[in-house]
Amino acid sequence: MSITAGIYGAAGYTGRELLALLHRHPDFSVAFATSDSSSGEVVQGVRLIPAEQADPSQAEVIFLCTPHGASAKLAAGALAEGARVVDLSADLRLKTPEAYAEWYGHPHPHPELLPTPYGLPEFNRATIEGQRRVANPGCYPTCTLLALRPLAQAGAMRADGPLVVDAKSGVSGAGRKASLDTHFVEVFGDLKPYNIGRVHRHVGEIEQELGAVAPDLLGKLVFSPHLLPVDRGLLATCYVPLAEGWTPEQARHLMTETYCHEPLVNLLPPGETVRLRDAARTNGALISLHPVSESMLIVVAAIDNLLKGASGQAVENMNLALGLEQRAGLS
Amino acid sequence: MSITAGIYGAAGYTGRELLALLHRHPDFSVAFATSDSSSGEVVQGVRLIPAEQADPSQAEVIFLCTPHGASAKLAAGALAEGARVVDLSADLRLKTPEAYAEWYGHPHPHPELLPTPYGLPEFNRATIEGQRRVANPGCYPTCTLLALRPLAQAGAMRADGPLVVDAKSGVSGAGRKASLDTHFVEVFGDLKPYNIGRVHRHVGEIEQELGAVAPDLLGKLVFSPHLLPVDRGLLATCYVPLAEGWTPEQARHLMTETYCHEPLVNLLPPGETVRLRDAARTNGALISLHPVSESMLIVVAAIDNLLKGASGQAVENMNLALGLEQRAGLS
Amino acid sequence: MSITAGIYGAAGYTGRELLALLHRHPDFSVAFATSDSSSGEVVQGVRLIPAEQADPSQAEVIFLCTPHGASAKLAAGALAEGARVVDLSADLRLKTPEAYAEWYGHPHPHPELLPTPYGLPEFNRATIEGQRRVANPGCYPTCTLLALRPLAQAGAMRADGPLVVDAKSGVSGAGRKASLDTHFVEVFGDLKPYNIGRVHRHVGEIEQELGAVAPDLLGKLVFSPHLLPVDRGLLATCYVPLAEGWTPEQARHLMTETYCHEPLVNLLPPGETVRLRDAARTNGALISLHPVSESMLIVVAAIDNLLKGASGQAVENMNLALGLEQRAGLS
Amino acid sequence: MSITAGIYGAAGYTGRELLALLHRHPDFSVAFATSDSSSGEVVQGVRLIPAEQADPSQAEVIFLCTPHGASAKLAAGALAEGARVVDLSADLRLKTPEAYAEWYGHPHPHPELLPTPYGLPEFNRATIEGQRRVANPGCYPTCTLLALRPLAQAGAMRADGPLVVDAKSGVSGAGRKASLDTHFVEVFGDLKPYNIGRVHRHVGEIEQELGAVAPDLLGKLVFSPHLLPVDRGLLATCYVPLAEGWTPEQARHLMTETYCHEPLVNLLPPGETVRLRDAARTNGALISLHPVSESMLIVVAAIDNLLKGASGQAVENMNLALGLEQRAGLS
Repeated sequence: MSITAGIYGAAGYTGRELLALLHRHPDFSVAFATSDSSSGEVVQGVRLIPAEQADPSQAEVIFLCTPHGASAKLAAGALAEGARVVDLSADLRLKTPEAYAEWYGHPHPHPELLPTPYGLPEFNRATIEGQRRVANPGCYPTCTLLALRPLAQAGAMRADGPLVVDAKSGVSGAGRKASLDTHFVEVFGDLKPYNIGRVHRHVGEIEQELGAVAPDLLGKLVFSPHLLPVDRGLLATCYVPLAEGWTPEQARHLMTETYCHEPLVNLLPPGETVRLRDAARTNGALISLHPVSESMLIVVAAIDNLLKGASGQAVENMNLALGLEQRAGLS
Repeated sequence: MSITAGIYGAAGYTGRELLALLHRHPDFSVAFATSDSSSGEVVQGVRLIPAEQADPSQAEVIFLCTPHGASAKLAAGALAEGARVVDLSADLRLKTPEAYAEWYGHPHPHPELLPTPYGLPEFNRATIEGQRRVANPGCYPTCTLLALRPLAQAGAMRADGPLVVDAKSGVSGAGRKASLDTHFVEVFGDLKPYNIGRVHRHVGEIEQELGAVAPDLLGKLVFSPHLLPVDRGLLATCYVPLAEGWTPEQARHLMTETYCHEPLVNLLPPGETVRLRDAARTNGALISLHPVSESMLIVVAAIDNLLKGASGQAVENMNLALGLEQRAGLS
Repeated sequence: MSITAGIYGAAGYTGRELLALLHRHPDFSVAFATSDSSSGEVVQGVRLIPAEQADPSQAEVIFLCTPHGASAKLAAGALAEGARVVDLSADLRLKTPEAYAEWYGHPHPHPELLPTPYGLPEFNRATIEGQRRVANPGCYPTCTLLALRPLAQAGAMRADGPLVVDAKSGVSGAGRKASLDTHFVEVFGDLKPYNIGRVHRHVGEIEQELGAVAPDLLGKLVFSPHLLPVDRGLLATCYVPLAEGWTPEQARHLMTETYCHEPLVNLLPPGETVRLRDAARTNGALISLHPVSESMLIVVAAIDNLLKGASGQAVENMNLALGLEQRAGLS
Repeated sequence: MSITAGIYGAAGYTGRELLALLHRHPDFSVAFATSDSSSGEVVQGVRLIPAEQADPSQAEVIFLCTPHGASAKLAAGALAEGARVVDLSADLRLKTPEAYAEWYGHPHPHPELLPTPYGLPEFNRATIEGQRRVANPGCYPTCTLLALRPLAQAGAMRADGPLVVDAKSGVSGAGRKASLDTHFVEVFGDLKPYNIGRVHRHVGEIEQELGAVAPDLLGKLVFSPHLLPVDRGLLATCYVPLAEGWTPEQARHLMTETYCHEPLVNLLPPGETVRLRDAARTNGALISLHPVSESMLIVVAAIDNLLKGASGQAVENMNLALGLEQRAGLS
């Protein structure tokens, strides 16, 4: 009674992690997994095949680990065949073709697929259940939104100044393709800020989701990713000016209410601080709150960039789309 | 014609680095170097002796690599013997006994030594020259002040909101004493925020120096140190709201003017970003500027925490105190 | 229907790993876990208590993660209470009090406990089943014996020259106690040989087990451990001179026969080479064979030092002692 | 009165290190430095140009950091122009075209250049002085030969069994070209044996030099390189069976005699063990001796693979060829 799954782009880090998760998942079997660069390689007992040899009609569900730009076309084809699709690329994340063109620099290849439900189950669970297509969030947006969206939605964040998110990610977030930027000798012993300010494409995605519940925050995000010399894990240090009438205690109360029943989010008690390694290699997220003054709160959040930040969340989304329990196969 | 130098606390990371610098310095010879825990060990050809066996009258200049609390007493003794003193601990950095008691939790052991000139040569060179005692700045304050003080002094920073400095340091900044926090297995693959907000003692030191030139910034600093899984290097990502009338271009012009003749500060050209490894194992500082909007600027700065952040700068200060060239022995 | 387990010395790396394994094990519940240095800390939902507060009569099985010298006494006490004991220290590994005194430098505290069955299930499974006490092997001996014992037993190793084993271990093998040797700054970017030749205590343990099946190998082992700058994992490169009449092909045939039904040992196919990371964080062992000439074979083996090299194997041994399946709780 | 130098292949790790060394060298100025992949980049103040734009007649000395196969042709051209040449590739290291073809799989492109003096100054200083062309040794051969050649030449090594050298190298030894093997995520936390046994090309080079002084050692080397998760440094653990009549004490006496006046080789006193980090980023080599028994000695040696193992030694060789002091520019 297994559900057949197909994976496109299975040779990268997210693809491999997804194959490992599906291998242990009680409800899925892998019908095919594709890779053009590594076809023939066997991963988790599955021999990778070129994408052109894959038959999407063999799979009830399709996971797309392909790059943005390539995913939309595969999504359209798989949906036409009747499969459910979770797209791990950025192609279906932004709600309008205009937003996509602004951040990705070219017209959206399949505008008819927009908007697609945004697969962050902690906030959109009802929208994802039963869906035929889901956009899997980016790693930085997942971490940042888990830290900030409840506060934004409740009006707890002051919007007259910048909203600073200083984020740090392990190297697997840069993908498995060989490049000088990910050469061991270049990364070892280093810390490198990149695309800082309002330049990184995830700014558009984060602001879309924050702006949907707090429009006055649009344009306020200052987002600085840094490349860390570790293989995996992502930590965001978020500097939150509190709105009039909000205290750090009230913010904690709100966050506790939001996450106390969430199986994959762990809000640490007062006095404890999130560290990267406690989130690495887990399917969950960790959050800690640090009052600075009556009007300022630091929120630290951490996830594994390949799990809650990619493939683990993709499994959550597919589980929900199929009516399974969100955490099925993820414990 | 060598100047005789004595070092207290020579077995720690700053002490060892200082011995290496003095070993290569053409103008100094080491009269003695003390360590109570590692006496007998030979470092850079010098056999460490217990502090009680050291005779401060043998040294014309004294470097104190001892912990805060212990340094002030040694400084008072050495000054009484007629030696010049550079104190690498925090004991002489704060200008008043009240500020010291507030941040260090106990009365200042030698309040008659306050205030002592603050040894950041890029800003206080004239005050340091010829001095008998100099307070060597902390590693985080050195990096942060090089990034921000010129802007503060010129009135370029808006003071109605928080001033966020997100800092990351290699583990040698935590000292050489064995502890679980610095155990390899605990740090490997991790990133750990600690003392974030307005809790770290360097907040007091940074605000003292910024506040001296821009009093309205007092109380605005939000400072978040993170422990990086690297041995050395320190990088600060600073989020600067610009004051009315200031643009990012004007800020760059100011920084260029400030640093164009500074031998140890390298302001990167537009489009380049500071990375940790380019500063590690060097005596200098690197700074890059990143306009976010017309009213927001990110300043990234990096130093080696043991060199410009400690022992290298201590040599600069002693050079200046003695009338030598600031960089003598440091190329 | 859970079996109650007590753990002594639960705050170290092996203790924590063991608590994590027992937490997931379907057949065990933790009755108590002790730590004198970290009592009060909660690990895997269990609050650590001082050893003197533990009541061994509450536990049907006892795991000793205490240091050698301390374990034997705890073992004797627990056995007297009727519990089964797996000792992860070295106290019960050597077969005679004389051998213990030779390698550990003091008389054995409970010679009546010797000999105790040596818990390497791949070779001693029948001896372990139903036992009341088992000596859990050291990490280096586990890896080395998995690589070499089948060849020794079959007479495939020439004994007229040295048997070189060049081993490399992650830092968690050195324990969780803070020391300069395990300080992050000391280990980062380093590789350090230590106790090389015939000095390391594991030489005695390895030769005992090899000598039991091939007495002419006694005194031939040259064993060189190196400290690797990684948190976990252990790899041994073993240089095996083949006896007359043995070819590399025959050696492969023997190893294949030995391990083809072993669930936790994976012999790689010809042409593949073991790497550390494929064994790290797994319960199994990896082995690859590399013919150098007709009379010389290199055997590379790797394990996780905390799992197959310590706590995972301790669970295997307790499973077997209790009549459970060897891998219960370990998948 | 500067000597003009040209560098081919200057964008790789050895090329960059060489540019840094020449930048500080009092006797050289860089006439040109080439890179086809990174032309236009400025390294140490020198703008890299495509090789075809370089005019070898502008340089009195030429350093070749180009790959084997490409270097020989450039060497022939430069020699024809009258320049002195140090080739850092393998093209000129083996003494005969036959040996080259055996280990590199294709005919030697310029057999008339063979034999070329082998540039290991500790053994061949007189042969190098005044030479017009020098073959710079490989990194593994440099380290291994410094450990073993004195013993081989004196007849101190028994030749009736294998000579095991277990070597470990940082990733910069694999070059700067991006590849999956050097991707940070693949190397982090790993240790990987590769080309172990008698497969690595450096086996031919090491045996040529050992065999020249001890022909009975030919065919006895068993050489196992391992990729270490560090950026730089190379350590070899060498297992030396001593010949009849030799004791470990005599071996130490010989090594002391050999190296006591060598400025770049540091033989550690009895009881100390070489570690990688003490050699990394230095121009020298470290050696320690470890008696195992009356007939067995372990020799541990370490160098920086880019300095004594490549560019530093290239400068030594050029210094000697020009009649300068061996260490000129290297302190």
